[in-house]
This record gives sequence, structure tokens and C-alpha cells, in this order.
Amino acid sequence: GFIHKGNEFTVSTGNGDTINGDALLLATGFDLFKSERKEEYGYGIYENVITSADLEAMFRKKEVKLVSGKKPERIGFLHCVGSRDEKVGNIYCSKLCCVTAVKQAIEVKKIFPASKVFCFYMDMRMGGALYEELYKEAQEKYSVGFIRGKVSEVAVNINNRLVAKVEDTLVGRPLKMELDMLVLMAGMEMSEDAVRLAKETNLQMGENRFFKPADHHFGTNMGNVNGVFYAGACTAPLNITETISHARSAVTEIVNYLNTGRK
Amino acid sequence: GFIHKGNEFTVSTGNGDTINGDALLLATGFDLFKSERKEEYGYGIYENVITSADLEAMFRKKEVKLVSGKKPERIGFLHCVGSRDEKVGNIYCSKLCCVTAVKQAIEVKKIFPASKVFCFYMDMRMGGALYEELYKEAQEKYSVGFIRGKVSEVAVNINNRLVAKVEDTLVGRPLKMELDMLVLMAGMEMSEDAVRLAKETNLQMGENRFFKPADHHFGTNMGNVNGVFYAGACTAPLNITETISHARSAVTEIVNYLNTGRK
Repeated sequence: GFIHKGNEFTVSTGNGDTINGDALLLATGFDLFKSERKEEYGYGIYENVITSADLEAMFRKKEVKLVSGKKPERIGFLHCVGSRDEKVGNIYCSKLCCVTAVKQAIEVKKIFPASKVFCFYMDMRMGGALYEELYKEAQEKYSVGFIRGKVSEVAVNINNRLVAKVEDTLVGRPLKMELDMLVLMAGMEMSEDAVRLAKETNLQMGENRFFKPADHHFGTNMGNVNGVFYAGACTAPLNITETISHARSAVTEIVNYLNTGRK
Repeated sequence: GFIHKGNEFTVSTGNGDTINGDALLLATGFDLFKSERKEEYGYGIYENVITSADLEAMFRKKEVKLVSGKKPERIGFLHCVGSRDEKVGNIYCSKLCCVTAVKQAIEVKKIFPASKVFCFYMDMRMGGALYEELYKEAQEKYSVGFIRGKVSEVAVNINNRLVAKVEDTLVGRPLKMELDMLVLMAGMEMSEDAVRLAKETNLQMGENRFFKPADHHFGTNMGNVNGVFYAGACTAPLNITETISHARSAVTEIVNYLNTGRK
């Protein structure tokens, strides 16, 4: 936490030191939605139901494989896990999961060119420079299948394969799809540490529990406490490019505050 | 245009003055896609086919009406006009048209509560703080109809009503819908002035003809010419919030350049 007296902030660090400052920049980031909460998708219950973060770790270790050690032949990506879902209290779109799914689908196809890869989505939200191009490449060059529909439930069949029940809204009928691996595209939530910090101090959280900006357009780096600034995904789901831009914007705001804004 | 000599820039203004500077910030904005180019939608051909900008002007004047002076009873919003459309050379998503359509649909329903309002979309791209909430409100509170499908053609029938041919991809069959007014959600393109500027100077344009950033993540404010900086929608489609953040980020980059970056 931090102590705020007059115009000065005192922050206690983990090792017991204290640091004083004239302004405070919070860049507390985000937590991934805990996929266990969507029990119907079987994360933590069925082998080979993994999260996008788990798959990313596999990419880094160059070990993309099933728990059995075999290579996956049919891989599904399930969008909107913990996003756009009132049942878990997250009405907002995490915005980055769609492009992450497309990126990961292409990477899987590069590793296993003979595999079948499917994305289950509600809307493909490829709003960002070169995102649409990537989506097109996934379809045309890598033959990733895009199925517009919600997965309602995941089970395991007698062959120990995952079975996803899908309502394909474009074809208008329910599907059962066998998969070897299902990747849950976990959304972004305000980090637990930041929630605790907000509760301990007077920092306000907004409707989706991210830090509430002073103004949605003009004041996204500023909070309700004079001298406290925000950068990055503690204010809303942001991609890397937006986060860097937002952090540089915070620098401008802080310099401005130090020059003229202190009360 | 501008002249770049050593570390100095000289800019000629419209009234014949010249201004010297140590760095140059370009904030040339965007042009709206010219909807006449999609002849099949009938802009400039049929009365009451208007653009989102035209409707915005009607809102400002508080005069939303048909050419006949009557009030519209059935209004359609057509997404992705000039965006995600290879035929016009724009593969990218303009990202803001979806939320603008929802905003305008709600405004129309507030003015004409008895009217029927429809949005024709490919994917609803509501990636932004409180966008999803607005989308939900449009459905639940204002009964805006969302039809997932491309409009292939607009004509006029014997009653002088617009007829939109729509492939409703969720129902899987073609529709003909009568409308009094059709609003084309025109996308964003690099401004013509900025294209000319890029051609006159050595500024590079990227794949979608926006200014090419030095790096897609770390260098979105910087171009290929040392001392030239970019802010806003001349680099990519950006909303107001993102534009403000990007502009403040440019300030940080320019100060950094003036302190240490000049060669």
C-alpha cells in the first residue's frame, strides 16, 4: 500500500524499505480470468483442457503436446472465457483474446500442419493494426476453421477424447465436436492486488472493477486522488501497443502535474 | 509541406508564413471513406441513403427526417462500408463504426421511439470501455435489431421505399427489407492531404496507407524520418480516447528526442 500526506506519497516496498515521491504511477496490470470458474468447460477437470496462457508456456518450452505425450490432431480455441459473460459478472469484452486465438491457432498449425484447428467465437473482434490481415491469413493460408457459436459444455467420451457441444449459429444446429485439446481464451480482469489496493486506499474502481479514470476520454491516466496516475491494463483491457502509448501518456500527465497541478 | 534540413524543419503555412522547428508532429487525421464508391448501396443515387456523418449532422441540427420531410419509420444501419472490403482495397477494420452505429441507433430510437431500427453487421466489434454495455442497452432497452449479414444491394420499390437485399447469415436465407432510411457506416482512411504529404516528402506509408510507424508496438509515434512524430488516426483507425492517449505519448517522445535523440 501507500500513505498519502499532503502532496507526498510514501510507499512501502516488499523488503521493508520506504520510498517517498511527489506523484504515484500505478501500473498494476491485470489478472487472467480463472478458467476453473467456468466449470462446464472442464478446466482442471479434464486433461487437455488448457488456457491460452498454458499454451503460450508450451510454445516457449517448445513442447506442445497432450498429457499422454502424443501430438494433438484436433485442437479447439474457445473465445470469450470470462468475457462478455454476465454469469461470471464480466459483461465487458477483453478485446485481445480474439487476436491471441488467431495468433495461437496459426502457431499450432505451423507446428502441426496436418492438425485440424477450430476457433469457436461469438464475434471476431480483430480491431487493431494488421489484425484483420492475420485473420485472413489464418483462414486462407492455414485453413483454421472459424465456427460462430457458443460452446455450452465439454465432456470426455469413451475414446478419452474431449467432446465439445457447440451451437453453430451460422448453420443453426447443435454440433458435437471431438477434440484432442481445447484452449480456453481467458479474459482480463483487474488484478487482485489492485482490488486490494483500491479497497485499502481511496482509489475508486469503475463499473468493470478496473480503476475508474477521472474521465473516459480525457483523463484515462488520472484517478480520483490528486497525484495518483494509472498506466496500462489496470484501467481497462489494453493490448501491448495501447499499454505503451498509455504509459507514455502518463509521463506527460505526471510532468504536467509536477509543474502545475499540485494543490 | 515541409522542408527538412539538418535537424531543422521549416513549415509553410497556408497564408505564406514559414515556421521553423526542431521537431515536427503530424496529426493529419483521417478521411471518411467515400460511400459513393460502393455504388450498390446507392449513396448519391437514392434519396434517404445517408452516411453516419450525414446523420450526425442531422442530430446536431435536431432535424432527423426523410427528404420528404416525413419522419422515418424503418431505419437501417449498414456496418463496414469501406472497411473489411478487399474490393475497395481496404482489408482493415475501422474499429469505431460498430460502436458509432450502436450509439446512433440508440439516438434514433430516442427521437422516434416507435421506429424500427436495424443494424446489419458482420461481427459486432465492441472492444472498448463500456462499449459492450452500450450494445446490451441497445438490444434490451431500445429493441434495436441486430442482423448478422451483408447487404448486397439497395434498390427502391414502387412505394418509393428503399429495399435492402440482405443475406441473414444467422437464419441462413436471403431477406428483402423495406427501409425509409439507410445509414452507411463509412470507415476511416488515411487523409488525402497526408497521402500527398507522404508522397512529397520521404515519409513512408504502411500496408493500409496510414503512416508507417517505426515499430508497431514501441514506435507508433515515430516515423522513418528522424524528428518527425505522429499522433492519432494518421497511423491507424483510433477512437477519441486512444487518440488523446497517443497524442500525449507523442509529447513524451518529442521531449525525449529534443533532450537526447537529435543526431
